[in-house]
Amino acid sequence: MKILIINGPNLNLLGQRKPEVYGQYTLKELNAFVREHFNKIELDFFQSNHEGEIIDSIHNAMENFDGIVINPGALTHYSYSLRDAIEACALPVIEVHLSNVAARESFRKISVISDVCSGTVSGFGAYGYVLAVQGLINQLKRTKQE
Amino acid sequence: MKILIINGPNLNLLGQRKPEVYGQYTLKELNAFVREHFNKIELDFFQSNHEGEIIDSIHNAMENFDGIVINPGALTHYSYSLRDAIEACALPVIEVHLSNVAARESFRKISVISDVCSGTVSGFGAYGYVLAVQGLINQLKRTKQE
Amino acid sequence: MKILIINGPNLNLLGQRKPEVYGQYTLKELNAFVREHFNKIELDFFQSNHEGEIIDSIHNAMENFDGIVINPGALTHYSYSLRDAIEACALPVIEVHLSNVAARESFRKISVISDVCSGTVSGFGAYGYVLAVQGLINQLKRTKQE
Amino acid sequence: MKILIINGPNLNLLGQRKPEVYGQYTLKELNAFVREHFNKIELDFFQSNHEGEIIDSIHNAMENFDGIVINPGALTHYSYSLRDAIEACALPVIEVHLSNVAARESFRKISVISDVCSGTVSGFGAYGYVLAVQGLINQLKRTKQE
Amino acid sequence: MKILIINGPNLNLLGQRKPEVYGQYTLKELNAFVREHFNKIELDFFQSNHEGEIIDSIHNAMENFDGIVINPGALTHYSYSLRDAIEACALPVIEVHLSNVAARESFRKISVISDVCSGTVSGFGAYGYVLAVQGLINQLKRTKQE
Amino acid sequence: MKILIINGPNLNLLGQRKPEVYGQYTLKELNAFVREHFNKIELDFFQSNHEGEIIDSIHNAMENFDGIVINPGALTHYSYSLRDAIEACALPVIEVHLSNVAARESFRKISVISDVCSGTVSGFGAYGYVLAVQGLINQLKRTKQE
Amino acid sequence: MKILIINGPNLNLLGQRKPEVYGQYTLKELNAFVREHFNKIELDFFQSNHEGEIIDSIHNAMENFDGIVINPGALTHYSYSLRDAIEACALPVIEVHLSNVAARESFRKISVISDVCSGTVSGFGAYGYVLAVQGLINQLKRTKQE
Amino acid sequence: MKILIINGPNLNLLGQRKPEVYGQYTLKELNAFVREHFNKIELDFFQSNHEGEIIDSIHNAMENFDGIVINPGALTHYSYSLRDAIEACALPVIEVHLSNVAARESFRKISVISDVCSGTVSGFGAYGYVLAVQGLINQLKRTKQE
Amino acid sequence: MKILIINGPNLNLLGQRKPEVYGQYTLKELNAFVREHFNKIELDFFQSNHEGEIIDSIHNAMENFDGIVINPGALTHYSYSLRDAIEACALPVIEVHLSNVAARESFRKISVISDVCSGTVSGFGAYGYVLAVQGLINQLKRTKQE
Amino acid sequence: MKILIINGPNLNLLGQRKPEVYGQYTLKELNAFVREHFNKIELDFFQSNHEGEIIDSIHNAMENFDGIVINPGALTHYSYSLRDAIEACALPVIEVHLSNVAARESFRKISVISDVCSGTVSGFGAYGYVLAVQGLINQLKRTKQE
Amino acid sequence: MKILIINGPNLNLLGQRKPEVYGQYTLKELNAFVREHFNKIELDFFQSNHEGEIIDSIHNAMENFDGIVINPGALTHYSYSLRDAIEACALPVIEVHLSNVAARESFRKISVISDVCSGTVSGFGAYGYVLAVQGLINQLKRTKQE
Amino acid sequence: MKILIINGPNLNLLGQRKPEVYGQYTLKELNAFVREHFNKIELDFFQSNHEGEIIDSIHNAMENFDGIVINPGALTHYSYSLRDAIEACALPVIEVHLSNVAARESFRKISVISDVCSGTVSGFGAYGYVLAVQGLINQLKRTKQE
Repeated sequence: MKILIINGPNLNLLGQRKPEVYGQYTLKELNAFVREHFNKIELDFFQSNHEGEIIDSIHNAMENFDGIVINPGALTHYSYSLRDAIEACALPVIEVHLSNVAARESFRKISVISDVCSGTVSGFGAYGYVLAVQGLINQLKRTKQE
Repeated sequence: MKILIINGPNLNLLGQRKPEVYGQYTLKELNAFVREHFNKIELDFFQSNHEGEIIDSIHNAMENFDGIVINPGALTHYSYSLRDAIEACALPVIEVHLSNVAARESFRKISVISDVCSGTVSGFGAYGYVLAVQGLINQLKRTKQE
Repeated sequence: MKILIINGPNLNLLGQRKPEVYGQYTLKELNAFVREHFNKIELDFFQSNHEGEIIDSIHNAMENFDGIVINPGALTHYSYSLRDAIEACALPVIEVHLSNVAARESFRKISVISDVCSGTVSGFGAYGYVLAVQGLINQLKRTKQE
Repeated sequence: MKILIINGPNLNLLGQRKPEVYGQYTLKELNAFVREHFNKIELDFFQSNHEGEIIDSIHNAMENFDGIVINPGALTHYSYSLRDAIEACALPVIEVHLSNVAARESFRKISVISDVCSGTVSGFGAYGYVLAVQGLINQLKRTKQE
Repeated sequence: MKILIINGPNLNLLGQRKPEVYGQYTLKELNAFVREHFNKIELDFFQSNHEGEIIDSIHNAMENFDGIVINPGALTHYSYSLRDAIEACALPVIEVHLSNVAARESFRKISVISDVCSGTVSGFGAYGYVLAVQGLINQLKRTKQE
Repeated sequence: MKILIINGPNLNLLGQRKPEVYGQYTLKELNAFVREHFNKIELDFFQSNHEGEIIDSIHNAMENFDGIVINPGALTHYSYSLRDAIEACALPVIEVHLSNVAARESFRKISVISDVCSGTVSGFGAYGYVLAVQGLINQLKRTKQE
Repeated sequence: MKILIINGPNLNLLGQRKPEVYGQYTLKELNAFVREHFNKIELDFFQSNHEGEIIDSIHNAMENFDGIVINPGALTHYSYSLRDAIEACALPVIEVHLSNVAARESFRKISVISDVCSGTVSGFGAYGYVLAVQGLINQLKRTKQE
Repeated sequence: MKILIINGPNLNLLGQRKPEVYGQYTLKELNAFVREHFNKIELDFFQSNHEGEIIDSIHNAMENFDGIVINPGALTHYSYSLRDAIEACALPVIEVHLSNVAARESFRKISVISDVCSGTVSGFGAYGYVLAVQGLINQLKRTKQE
Repeated sequence: MKILIINGPNLNLLGQRKPEVYGQYTLKELNAFVREHFNKIELDFFQSNHEGEIIDSIHNAMENFDGIVINPGALTHYSYSLRDAIEACALPVIEVHLSNVAARESFRKISVISDVCSGTVSGFGAYGYVLAVQGLINQLKRTKQE
Repeated sequence: MKILIINGPNLNLLGQRKPEVYGQYTLKELNAFVREHFNKIELDFFQSNHEGEIIDSIHNAMENFDGIVINPGALTHYSYSLRDAIEACALPVIEVHLSNVAARESFRKISVISDVCSGTVSGFGAYGYVLAVQGLINQLKRTKQE
Repeated sequence: MKILIINGPNLNLLGQRKPEVYGQYTLKELNAFVREHFNKIELDFFQSNHEGEIIDSIHNAMENFDGIVINPGALTHYSYSLRDAIEACALPVIEVHLSNVAARESFRKISVISDVCSGTVSGFGAYGYVLAVQGLINQLKRTKQE
Repeated sequence: MKILIINGPNLNLLGQRKPEVYGQYTLKELNAFVREHFNKIELDFFQSNHEGEIIDSIHNAMENFDGIVINPGALTHYSYSLRDAIEACALPVIEVHLSNVAARESFRKISVISDVCSGTVSGFGAYGYVLAVQGLINQLKRTKQE
């Protein structure tokens, strides 16, 4: 089983930006933290500030991965192109947010991708990625059983 | 560690209603399924179709539990009284939904409680309760460490 | 054939409140008035000011009745929990209103349950319940023929 | 007692268009079906795809009929001229819809005529016309008694 | 003269929840505080987290009280059933809020009951109940004089 | 100088419908009343309940009249086809309303034709037509002088 | 018969500002133009850029005039205080605009005073004041006859 | 193959009205222009300013034509009756506009018929009808092949 | 303790305008009525129809008064300048309305000043000023105790 | 004559994604299909998932092409940068969509580029590109003639 | 070159009100601070809490100044009369705000005057007036050169 | 002191596109024009049509610059990713626009970045960059002094 974890714009700044909101891990530390929870699963990590590169990476994942966990950063709120990419790829995609987005600025309450994702996890900080991967694995197993 | 799991209106019908949306477990089976994942944690389960009883149960939990996982059913979309109860109790509360609510009727896109919860999990079926409890435990541990 | 007639919040005050809008029957008289039109049909009547009790009564009706006629009072305008209960029960449900709700306050123009009911009757006073029961019987008969 | 039953735009296509929504009767069969329920009442039927002709027919009904049952088709959603005609004529007018309009496209949720009608019936197919006529007769009788 | 003071959902937590917003009195102390201002008036106190029970208590008050002071808690913002109960009872009803609701979350700016109450007092903490009772007494006296 | 006065849907009922709003003249009397104010001007009158006929009459007026006074009735609020006809004809068109439309139902506050008319007169009853014709004559004279 | 003509903010600039919109008369010339049409009526003119002074002038008019013609300039679009003054004074008030406000910026489409005025005239330039006075006189005469 | 080309209200004025927007062809010339592009296809042309006649013509086309090209004029923006007619007829219908409607008044941005048409062409002037017919032929051919 | 009572536009007309809404006191009588309830408090009264004068009076009050009671009349609904003045002055300000504004025109439901006031009283007629002053005194005392 | 055909995000997946919506051609096949219709015209094809690259390609086209046909994918709905690029380049640009976007999700009904394009074609599948190129050629020829 | 600097309602309180938002200068000190940057330019300063006086001052400036810098305070958000005054005067007008209004209450995001001003500067505190004057001088010079 | 000046999508076309709106400088000339005003400050210039590259450049600036001046072009209106980048970098950022955006298309009235910038300058053409840099320098100096 092979899972791709995508982080969107500005998440390369983790650990530097608003630690009270996003936690104190750098992105590298976050990735290590997630990886150590899953030793039987192949995990790949990708980050970009470019919408186009993220769409490309989702397209490429179609042949190489079983599922995707994505924290799209602020693309969550307006990138219908990302949405189309998620809908177009045949993989289950889990949306994850570090903070409780509902408790922040009102524009963050709108996600244009939620309804084409197969699950959402938000508000658990770095641990939310662990929950998301776990939930994704569970979905993949159930699908295989069917 | 003691956690209360609350299910709101109509969730007593689980297994009978739209199994393609809500899964095939009955509520009793769902509870058993969640319990078997956590043998070191004390879990209590409560279901009611009455907003007032759910608020009462949250109030009572304040002294008896370390945290709450709640699937408020359709109260999610209008019960500001429930919201006030969640905000008023000093416990971390995780919101969980069986289905991906964002992909259903438009009124289900609005949650009046999300911003007073400390985390949200949706779209993972019964397994979402497991993720929610796990996420809650993680939050409780981190809080203790601080 | 067995039909449950549910009246929601404040309808226990019938005959006391705004008789020019709601008519002069008390609820008891209204029920008697409806019953005398249907001597071959078993009719049961339930009224409550509690959303939760109404939901419970719909759940219980699933095994004991062939259909429901409901005047949800002001729950019409916000109770998504009631809506879910109506949608979840496998019975045809007819929505009835004594007055022409479209001609009153603007908040009364929105019904959150209409699209999960199988028919609506409004503006005919007490006689509207008779029409609703009649329409429900007709639907039940047509369903049986199919 | 003399009642006019008006059908608006596209209802001449009944039986041809979306039978799962509108039923299998042609308009002619529908009219016959309604008539056979009321042998003591004089019923007249009128259908037009022209808003102006429907308004004319309402004006003419003022002197010749005791009440009107109207299915305005899609005029329901925008024809303020029809609304003014209904309000201007001194007759009670019942609005009827074959299907449950609340469960269809969102533009069908708005009726610009409901608040000037004296009652509404929707979702009962052809039988809804029978209920509407019955409700109208009941209103006319009550008015006479006053 | 006999007045009923109703407190809605979560107000049983007074003194425990956000004292900087709601003050430091418990509900019991608040009631005592109000009572000591009015030794010639019979005051009754009722609190519930159940919408239905509050509606029942208003119905029952119709025969036993001269007026009502109500702090509906978050029911203020969505309970059209409560609104109907207030409108239906023949008594003057005063709406009271401990805090200045206009200065809090935006959903608190909408009251669905204000226009059926005969007066509103907000932002004066516990003392606001004293003002509300006083205002109600004044209204009752003026009505008697007419 | 030749002026066409057009009256839209339901204005044939003048004198019968809501005399406190529309005055007590019949349409025939109204026309006579207007005519007697202008003995040097050729006035033509047209009324129809059919949007299409009114559009046709405006088209025909292009060659035969110097200007138009129109009371479009409820077409005012939705007929973009009428609007296009007014804009397309090369004549100045004055919009007139018997009653003060701003003081009536909220849908009457929107006129889709006002911005393509060269003037508006409302609230003066039958006399408003006189003012409208006078204003139109004034506009025509000023145009000729330029 | 005595009529007060009020001009609001910026109308003192007439003749200087956008002559293609407002015409070429100065305010003084406009007033003279209006006066010469009515030799049997006493006309008074008032202009101010101060909302408060205009309200004062309306209050004072209550005892000294039979009616008011007002062009409130941009106060039209937001001054609820002016609206209250118009509603409070017992006189008929006619709203007049030089240009066709509906054909200009969208904020000019909203008048907060129209529904408390007894008539509106717009789009006729300086001549609109003549029509407004004429219409006001007609209203005053009709009122006297009643 | 037989195709009906329908033009709605005011399109009879083509060549007279705003030639910079609608081009310089009269309707007759436009029809000739379209016809000369398709010598193997039977083309019929219909224009009316009457919504009802256009609906009638669509109904009649059901038996006599293979498809329809329609420029509904301003009916585009409000005629739900036209929409129902298009949806009800079993033929593919292409919506065509001479000008780029998106670049004009904001009310022209809303088409109530687009989602029941099988294609849209706008902004190409008279040549747009040629493209629309071509596109329709292509659709008809593909359908036959299936 | 010194308190300033400000009345805004049109409140000088009290007793003349809509007595069923605003009561029968003139402003002078109202002021006397309020004063007689507080013989130990220095009360000053100010009324103006000029927004600017009211702002000036609030500025001046900063050095001379302990608190303000204000009925801003219709300025309530749009005067952000008044709002800034209230926020800028260091005094507690109580908003008071004679009538129940929530039960009147919809524009009266919006107060742009409520969230910068420390309390609101509405619907008690002249007696509301007494309650407001009392509430203000209570707030001032509590502040002193802190 | 040289024309650039641009395809936006996710259109590289054509043939893989929702063939019932987008058709069965791959992008390569689509391009070939379009090219074979125009042997006298030079056609260039560009696809990217990167908004920035598409803007760059439009800028570069300014000197090398006579016109552009663009299917912007989901950028249609939010990319004001793309809009500015289209408006800034001096070339005519035709917007094309494979499916009938009006009949899909509601966010697809808004195009932020339509009003700066010179024509739109949607709903004709691959053949729509042929129509768009044809329409563009026609526009270019007409412009040359002027 | 002569420039008028206008400050609107409540700006006389500068230095007293929210220094963290508006800075610590009094208005007098602010004016001195601005003046010392421009020794070759004639600067005049005007402040008023009265909308009418500000409009008057703009009218008077037409003959005596080359341009205006205005901080309209809260009039920014609703005074269409001020807007008309700015548009009517032939001078370039620069809008300036001390704080970053976009980062404050949502009502401050709307400026009804921006689109008739020739430039805007906000968020630079007292120094923003210096930038505004400089920008205005630059505009005036460029205009002269043309 | 080192300042980065960023220009967003389509600003590379300066001098070619709508010179009456954006001025006649090319971007190169604009940069030279700005640079010649500041000989003691190190200025760097960056332009890109790619949102991702602009975000990258802001991230990189965090270590190498003291502040940023940005004209985000149309990204202003939707790029929440850019907004997050601005908020995340610890530098003061000034938003600048060449034209008066408030006076153009309505979508340009919304800036999603203004409230995380420390100042805004718009409407001064090329000179606006000079003002922005000056304002930024002033902010940086004031911050150092604190």
